[in-house]
Amino acid sequence: MSVPKAQLEAFLAELRGASPGLDVTTAEATLAPFGQDESGLGTFPPQALVRAVSTAHVSTVLRLATKHGVPITPVGARTGKSGGSLPIAGGVALSLERMDRILEVNADDLLMVVQPGVRTAQVDEAAEKLGLFYPPDPNSADACTMGGNVAENAGGPRALKYGVTRDYVLGLEWVMPTGEVLRVGRRTHKGVAGYDLVGLFVGSEGTLGVATEITLKLIPRPRVVKTALIPFRNVSDAARALSSVLTSGAWPRTLELLDEVALKAIAGQGLPTPPDAGAVVIAELDGNQDDAVLSELSAVVERCASWGSLEAVVAQDEAQRARLWAVRKAVSPALRSLLGQKISEDVVVPRSKVPEAIERFKAAGARQGLVVATYGHAGDGNLHSNVLYRSMDEWPRVEAVLAELMAITLELGGTISGEHGIGLAKKRFLALELSAPLRELQRRLKVFCDPSVVLNPGKIWD
Amino acid sequence: MSVPKAQLEAFLAELRGASPGLDVTTAEATLAPFGQDESGLGTFPPQALVRAVSTAHVSTVLRLATKHGVPITPVGARTGKSGGSLPIAGGVALSLERMDRILEVNADDLLMVVQPGVRTAQVDEAAEKLGLFYPPDPNSADACTMGGNVAENAGGPRALKYGVTRDYVLGLEWVMPTGEVLRVGRRTHKGVAGYDLVGLFVGSEGTLGVATEITLKLIPRPRVVKTALIPFRNVSDAARALSSVLTSGAWPRTLELLDEVALKAIAGQGLPTPPDAGAVVIAELDGNQDDAVLSELSAVVERCASWGSLEAVVAQDEAQRARLWAVRKAVSPALRSLLGQKISEDVVVPRSKVPEAIERFKAAGARQGLVVATYGHAGDGNLHSNVLYRSMDEWPRVEAVLAELMAITLELGGTISGEHGIGLAKKRFLALELSAPLRELQRRLKVFCDPSVVLNPGKIWD
Repeated sequence: MSVPKAQLEAFLAELRGASPGLDVTTAEATLAPFGQDESGLGTFPPQALVRAVSTAHVSTVLRLATKHGVPITPVGARTGKSGGSLPIAGGVALSLERMDRILEVNADDLLMVVQPGVRTAQVDEAAEKLGLFYPPDPNSADACTMGGNVAENAGGPRALKYGVTRDYVLGLEWVMPTGEVLRVGRRTHKGVAGYDLVGLFVGSEGTLGVATEITLKLIPRPRVVKTALIPFRNVSDAARALSSVLTSGAWPRTLELLDEVALKAIAGQGLPTPPDAGAVVIAELDGNQDDAVLSELSAVVERCASWGSLEAVVAQDEAQRARLWAVRKAVSPALRSLLGQKISEDVVVPRSKVPEAIERFKAAGARQGLVVATYGHAGDGNLHSNVLYRSMDEWPRVEAVLAELMAITLELGGTISGEHGIGLAKKRFLALELSAPLRELQRRLKVFCDPSVVLNPGKIWD
Repeated sequence: MSVPKAQLEAFLAELRGASPGLDVTTAEATLAPFGQDESGLGTFPPQALVRAVSTAHVSTVLRLATKHGVPITPVGARTGKSGGSLPIAGGVALSLERMDRILEVNADDLLMVVQPGVRTAQVDEAAEKLGLFYPPDPNSADACTMGGNVAENAGGPRALKYGVTRDYVLGLEWVMPTGEVLRVGRRTHKGVAGYDLVGLFVGSEGTLGVATEITLKLIPRPRVVKTALIPFRNVSDAARALSSVLTSGAWPRTLELLDEVALKAIAGQGLPTPPDAGAVVIAELDGNQDDAVLSELSAVVERCASWGSLEAVVAQDEAQRARLWAVRKAVSPALRSLLGQKISEDVVVPRSKVPEAIERFKAAGARQGLVVATYGHAGDGNLHSNVLYRSMDEWPRVEAVLAELMAITLELGGTISGEHGIGLAKKRFLALELSAPLRELQRRLKVFCDPSVVLNPGKIWD
């Protein structure tokens, strides 16, 4: 899909006139990379790219897009997994990457104000300098930007204890699809004045507006973090152990699971696992007292032992911890390299259903002659189940497996997306989870905010 | 205001026909108590009362109300402080109190499903039996109901560490003002499928719909809770100490403050404070290790000592803890009894501004010859500043003080309501906090959900 040349030219001409200093380009070489993200859903280069450096830029782009009916796709670091930043309708990619300043770090008020182009890792690094903590830790934290985190309501391993992006966004400067600039939310950790539009806008996947300033809640940083690698003979034992850990009173900040395929993918990367390990759990606890955290970690390790875990390894220092997490972060690319292609899901099932879900996902793959690898945030039921394949010839069978994964997930009382979003990737499955009246209300809400349907069209909704 | 008799009769007649078993009454004696709540904003008896026992009842009431243009005010325990449950437009009070069943307590999935009439305290009692925790603890927890907590996004002392009602609502069965029944949200702790309507609906003060089923997130219950009463010579020292505690790395679950007027009000109730105490802080920490929690509490007490606190008292057992909190809960009624009348605010200022806010609130009262007492959740900046008065003769001066409190709060970067809601009480101040375009968008959102404006009209918006 694309916008007729004359229509686009008229839009760009008025935009250039109205936005001095706005970087507008139509050079194909520059546009090319903006046609892809990490969803692997294809290549959809925009017809033009604008790089905003101010809220006024964003507002003008959207106001004129609404006037000219030109599709706008907001873009950050393009690390998304659901295709949210793919300009599938053509038109203009609106990059926020140059709005990359941390505007305020306020230790007394436990908050930070950032522009959308600030990388997620920068936020926690700045907080750490003041003994504070920004917990959300998507796997792409070093590359992804806060605008994208807000759009997708990004999660990560620590969501188990600390929640997701939405739990840390206090306020937003928000540009509506019409170009109207609003300040929603607040600077205090508590507040109920008016409707919670922050709650509505976070996770709206770039379809209800664009964040140009983000006020984040920070919390005191735990002084002690202890991490254990707990091997199991097989993933079923591991999954059952996890369920039982969470009802034992312990509250780890992460309970990550890697199945035997994930382990095979990262073999040789130095994860200290015994040869008979068919799965591992990475359990991490935090607090302010060394002994207390260690004894809680021991309790978790013992609980796992009672479910048949093998000898656990507790990271002895920060370097060992960092190595464990580096290997964990390497799982996704390593799985891709096994057969060349993969598609990664992020379904969530009620915690008690994790063992059954993993077994049924594997069986669903096997029925199509495909391998399903499962790893991820099993502690909160958020499973990154990956369907591995070699080439597009296998795609119809991959599709069949994905459909089964979604059906099983919903049958178990889960949700089709825990943190990646619907975007383009899961549009076709949304009707399985949300009722027709609920989808209708949400579509109407989209049009309520974006009457001309110019902002990220074709995402979530057709 | 009231609905013409013929119009009301036509509505009630059709309602009775359509809802077998629905308890409908127009008996004045029964209606009278439904004309008041704990806001002290006046008496507005409804013209009829319906007591729903099912979602179908609620749906039919709203569908027919929309058809007949009859105002419906949802009512729980009427413990609200902002007038949210007052039928100011006349019409019908819709009581949810008889939908009072806990439908599911699921320890494996860490969740609970309740009807709106379940009392808040019941939720945590049921969770505690399984070693789980429902943290929100509004002062009225023993009386207020979850439907009201969802409508107002209720908070409480523990919000400092654990957040508010909204942070624990995973899903809702929600009846739109048109009568349409929707299931929004999910049963998993994580999920991003579609827009976050749970975020939008929680805290909508009974203006966007009615919750008929609430799915709540539970968390592991800390095994150890330690509480200290820390006296100070004056409230300024106390407030400054609080700010510094929160930047020291400690993360208490409550940091409550009582100023000298609040202390005077509860004199004789047995709070163990020295004679020269002009303020007290109640600091409570939790965890799973006795020594760790005690040593963190000691660190908080020492930090306060460095800011001039007097001899602190650490509760030695559960009975002493309960006693401290019983006295804390008694502050609000005790303050009323000082002069006979009071109006309680719930403004929030950035934590670092708490000392300045308290001093300026007092001065604002003094300028009008009135006493302003401040107590509450100072740890997160949420201050219950109370203007005390004797009779309505003083009301104009009370109003003048309230207006100054709001102006000071906003000047300090705060919000006019932390947990009570706007309702009727703060409608006139909302324009001071929310911009005209933002108010306009929210008003339009109200009409988007409630085209006939029959659900709780006159609340938040005129």
